[in-house]
Amino acid sequence: MILQTDSPLDPFFAPQSIAVIGVSHNPAKLGYGIAKNLLHCGYQGAVHFVNPKGGTLFECPVYSAISDVPDPVDLAVLLIAAHLVPATLTACGERGIRAAIIASGGFREVGAEGAALEAECLHIAQDYDIRLLGPNCIGLIDTHLPLNTTFLPPPGPPPGEIAFISHSGAICAAIIDWAHGQGFGFSRIVSLGNQVDVTETDVLLPVAHDMHTKVLTLYLEGIDNGRFFIQSAQQITSHKPIIALKVGRSAAGQRAAASHTGALAGQEDAYNAAFRKAGVLRASTANEMFDWAKALAWCPLPAGENVAVLTNAGGPGVIAADALEANGLKLAELETVTTKSLHELLSAAAGLNNPVDMLASASPTQYAESLRLLLGDDNVNSVLVILPAPPMFSAVSVADEIIPIIQVSEKPVVVALMGDLLTAEAQPVFRAARIPDYPFPEQAASALAALTQYAFFKRKKLTDSLQAMDVDKTAVQTILKKHASGFLPQDSIQKILTAYAIPYPKTKLARSAQETVTSVQKVGFPVVMKIASPDIPHKSDMDGVVLGVEDVDTAVSTYNQLITRANTARPTAKILGVDIQQMVLPGQEMIAGIVQDPQFGPLLMFGSGGVEVEGLEDVAFALAPLTSEDVDYLLNSTWAGRKLSGYRNVAGVDKTAVVNLLIQLSQLALDFPQLTEIEINPLRATDNNVIALDVRIRLT
Amino acid sequence: MILQTDSPLDPFFAPQSIAVIGVSHNPAKLGYGIAKNLLHCGYQGAVHFVNPKGGTLFECPVYSAISDVPDPVDLAVLLIAAHLVPATLTACGERGIRAAIIASGGFREVGAEGAALEAECLHIAQDYDIRLLGPNCIGLIDTHLPLNTTFLPPPGPPPGEIAFISHSGAICAAIIDWAHGQGFGFSRIVSLGNQVDVTETDVLLPVAHDMHTKVLTLYLEGIDNGRFFIQSAQQITSHKPIIALKVGRSAAGQRAAASHTGALAGQEDAYNAAFRKAGVLRASTANEMFDWAKALAWCPLPAGENVAVLTNAGGPGVIAADALEANGLKLAELETVTTKSLHELLSAAAGLNNPVDMLASASPTQYAESLRLLLGDDNVNSVLVILPAPPMFSAVSVADEIIPIIQVSEKPVVVALMGDLLTAEAQPVFRAARIPDYPFPEQAASALAALTQYAFFKRKKLTDSLQAMDVDKTAVQTILKKHASGFLPQDSIQKILTAYAIPYPKTKLARSAQETVTSVQKVGFPVVMKIASPDIPHKSDMDGVVLGVEDVDTAVSTYNQLITRANTARPTAKILGVDIQQMVLPGQEMIAGIVQDPQFGPLLMFGSGGVEVEGLEDVAFALAPLTSEDVDYLLNSTWAGRKLSGYRNVAGVDKTAVVNLLIQLSQLALDFPQLTEIEINPLRATDNNVIALDVRIRLT
Repeated sequence: MILQTDSPLDPFFAPQSIAVIGVSHNPAKLGYGIAKNLLHCGYQGAVHFVNPKGGTLFECPVYSAISDVPDPVDLAVLLIAAHLVPATLTACGERGIRAAIIASGGFREVGAEGAALEAECLHIAQDYDIRLLGPNCIGLIDTHLPLNTTFLPPPGPPPGEIAFISHSGAICAAIIDWAHGQGFGFSRIVSLGNQVDVTETDVLLPVAHDMHTKVLTLYLEGIDNGRFFIQSAQQITSHKPIIALKVGRSAAGQRAAASHTGALAGQEDAYNAAFRKAGVLRASTANEMFDWAKALAWCPLPAGENVAVLTNAGGPGVIAADALEANGLKLAELETVTTKSLHELLSAAAGLNNPVDMLASASPTQYAESLRLLLGDDNVNSVLVILPAPPMFSAVSVADEIIPIIQVSEKPVVVALMGDLLTAEAQPVFRAARIPDYPFPEQAASALAALTQYAFFKRKKLTDSLQAMDVDKTAVQTILKKHASGFLPQDSIQKILTAYAIPYPKTKLARSAQETVTSVQKVGFPVVMKIASPDIPHKSDMDGVVLGVEDVDTAVSTYNQLITRANTARPTAKILGVDIQQMVLPGQEMIAGIVQDPQFGPLLMFGSGGVEVEGLEDVAFALAPLTSEDVDYLLNSTWAGRKLSGYRNVAGVDKTAVVNLLIQLSQLALDFPQLTEIEINPLRATDNNVIALDVRIRLT
Repeated sequence: MILQTDSPLDPFFAPQSIAVIGVSHNPAKLGYGIAKNLLHCGYQGAVHFVNPKGGTLFECPVYSAISDVPDPVDLAVLLIAAHLVPATLTACGERGIRAAIIASGGFREVGAEGAALEAECLHIAQDYDIRLLGPNCIGLIDTHLPLNTTFLPPPGPPPGEIAFISHSGAICAAIIDWAHGQGFGFSRIVSLGNQVDVTETDVLLPVAHDMHTKVLTLYLEGIDNGRFFIQSAQQITSHKPIIALKVGRSAAGQRAAASHTGALAGQEDAYNAAFRKAGVLRASTANEMFDWAKALAWCPLPAGENVAVLTNAGGPGVIAADALEANGLKLAELETVTTKSLHELLSAAAGLNNPVDMLASASPTQYAESLRLLLGDDNVNSVLVILPAPPMFSAVSVADEIIPIIQVSEKPVVVALMGDLLTAEAQPVFRAARIPDYPFPEQAASALAALTQYAFFKRKKLTDSLQAMDVDKTAVQTILKKHASGFLPQDSIQKILTAYAIPYPKTKLARSAQETVTSVQKVGFPVVMKIASPDIPHKSDMDGVVLGVEDVDTAVSTYNQLITRANTARPTAKILGVDIQQMVLPGQEMIAGIVQDPQFGPLLMFGSGGVEVEGLEDVAFALAPLTSEDVDYLLNSTWAGRKLSGYRNVAGVDKTAVVNLLIQLSQLALDFPQLTEIEINPLRATDNNVIALDVRIRLT
């Protein structure tokens, strides 16, 4: 299992005693709510109240200062005016408190003054080794310890197996209330607030380590340190699933579009690549996150993607079949013996192929026996039971018959319990037995897909990153020292490519018509001629590329044409001359590019190249360093990657060479984060080679 | 409004009196349920019971035969053993009944014998002019008349504004039960069963004509007559919205892949094109269908796509912003005067840009006044109110303040009422006021998108189909008479293209090396040479195309090479010779293809052409005849279409010529349904022309 943490965050999750600073006697105040929740939640440690006015509250003494509270105090909860927080934190530090929740608002979220106050708090906390949760948060809840440091009105969340970590306190509050009608419960809830100190990633391992937590759910508005997040999440997801609802997509702008890669690689692509690498399931709505969490908390994992659907009506069966396919699952092909036994069991007109339609007359016993047969079928990895109230029986009588079978099954079973009044009695019975129910087959199918996806991830052995070969870092360091920010000239680019064993066509820069003559002789005909200018990134946009030049006279006249054309089209551009390049054999063309993501480091883009990259949008993204899973994903999810093996009369090319190039390119970007954009477009692959035809690198 | 129907289906929806044949005294039998529902639902007409055993039921006489029932009887409901149905139908016909619901099962759904029985019933019905609903259906419900011919256990559906037409009785039953917890109600519900006579399309207009119905929802497992459906739905959707949940996607196979178009054009593409043409909104889940229906039934339509979000917390506001963008809507840019007034109204730290975040302290009055300001802003077309229970106020107190404002607004307002116990009191208050509530902002955003999409459709004047020009039908008839089924030879294809004014490059068939010499002279160098064989559809797969032949000698040797190559690669293929074709100027290449859909007629595919069509999947579909909306959709939803106007150094081409060609092609397919596949690939457009470079036509 997950390694024990001996974490500095332990006082938050297992405090022996807590002091609440800022309690109130007024039931309309939040400081009253915190005191009440903490006393009434069943917390077993000592609770102390602090308020300068003193007195008693709920029959407990109220100390006038934190310094008066008797030892020990592991955790302080502050709900006082923002401007009083620094002094109070100092007092906490002085008396040896090492963990504090700042529930108060009035910090960064209200502007510059609040931000300064927040910085001051952090400074004090660092001086005294205090870890801070918040400010502007609602604190934390552990339903099993139990512990509730929030001011939320009762009832608290139902106890359960799902942990919820959230950047938004309001979402915590709403989800806690909403969950009461949903039948699942929470193990731990952490509201992070402004994250002046403790971040979403800091709490991952301590929460995952909790024995009552079977699934972690995250509401994220961003990630503070991308590499650290991936590393922490990877440790967890090989044991327990994590589901993230990452919001702020609409706010996340695209990057500056100096390259195709920059234009296409949005922050969301980096998040998706990070979640994929870390094995984190990304939900698209809050509802979906908890639909999945419920199944992951309660069901065994399926051994494969083949699902049997058991229904008493055709329509919902068709809906289920559609939804399973849309979610990437398959309808299991039942074994003959199963179909035969079902035939004996069910009415003559029943549908025996999957979906198994027992018809409206299906009895509780037929439900149970059919389910038993399906679970016994080796071709079936999981079962979706559809249960609208049968016309002749109660839904709860079906529930009573099938629950014992589900509970001993090693395969997951989810239930589409369709209805309201007629299924009301069955619903709590399923929930008490920890069997996930959904109002329609679509949600049930989606939950099975989440189970299957996580099972697939967990079965895979996490592989090491693929290693780059023949890398000469020193050579690149030497080259980069010579350059200021901006696009690198071709001769430097070629030296960098050489240092990282990335093949490129022989190229010579001609700075005059005369140099053209010697250059073409060195490169060898036929040649490609391209305008050389750091200020003209998209050369073909201004007809700056001429293919198939076959003799010296044409080469010289082309040189003059290109220079004139460039001077006319871009009068202010610095023109270095014309690059004379070896013309390469035809093959397949693609794009490979890198941008440096501020959160996650080098983000690699691979896909269909040419000038129409943004139009075709046949691209995929992965974070460096690449694993073989990353490479499979890049190649399988793009048409450019799939056709490397050949398609109709498009000949297959050297896939291994393409993969190796991607690894070398990723390593280059990892080694030199100052290379903020690298783009090879086109990258050409032939049957025994790959070659970077046109490369641009921007140094920052 | 929708035209009055004087429909033969009127007896179903407004019967003066009803006879139930097959009532039962046994409360466990469905025949008891029908009798009880009909008597207790409040139906105002006469109700008569029939059962050979006679007696009384619920104090009404039970007649021993339908012939004994006193006049008039408008509608018969049959729930008797399947084999008794034909004789009973005859008896109904004899006594002048013109409408019957066959609730009994045991027909087509149980096999061949049942199907024969069903056919017999239809035969009798046609003889006596009886219209049949069913068999194997649960009948119909009108909550306003009221009328309930079903055997479903009480309570019946809550009355409301949503009509539901369903191919599945089980879905009807489950949705009716589920709706009790959802706060919306139904006007009419029609269960169609096996549709031996009355189909989903037949009931559309009669249901739409019902004054209580504001939205039609359809659960469809297919469509019986595609053209009739489009025509009927178009009449309705210009007045009332229709939402369809079409299932059976997983079962709908792709077509035989004799062409790229055939390989890509699935039945679902035809359904999508039909729904788009008819203005029908397609929901992807049952839940989504009713989320949308609720908003369409209760809200005014928005004048545009700009939404204001009003929230008391940041997190749900971000979720809403994401969801609005994902649904194609925009965050409204608030007018300065609005922001200024909000500033005066709200706390200093409130977020005044859209989403407007009033912070957790927001009072009911602040909710109400902010909402009033947003609704008064000319840049705002609709408002999404987010309402988790505020920490200091009850959710219902907010509801009470904002409802009067929403009720007089001409702009739609939807509410994300987040929670359960703490919002329980507010929920029925919103619902009673006919204001749609959703558990999370995502569903609220999706509902606003449905409102906006329908409003957009309704504002558009339905345009006539675009007219083809210079069409010579007779010429094509003459050509087709000469051919049996199969792929047409190039000379016939050229004559067809000429007759429909579709430009193609000058081509001559050479049947020998000698004919090659005369052909190349007639066509003029340079030429393209292609193997001519009805048995080799994908010529380039076997290197059957040679470009840029520039002289007679090369032409002759190429002829011989192509013939040898074809004989080797496809020894059994019939080789007609080699097509010598004028070589056309470079430009943009695309694909335009047609398949004949069995339900909907000619389905046109347009997109990126070449051999990689299936790989790139940059294609879109529309049904012929094309309207200008169809053309806009084809061009705007494909990269091939968007780049016709030019992109970077890809020069723009003659878009009008492309559009005209699509119209001509569609007309050809409409006029000759026996042309089951037509494919132009590539279709090349230059700056002043479009030309069908390679055309294949299959005749069936």
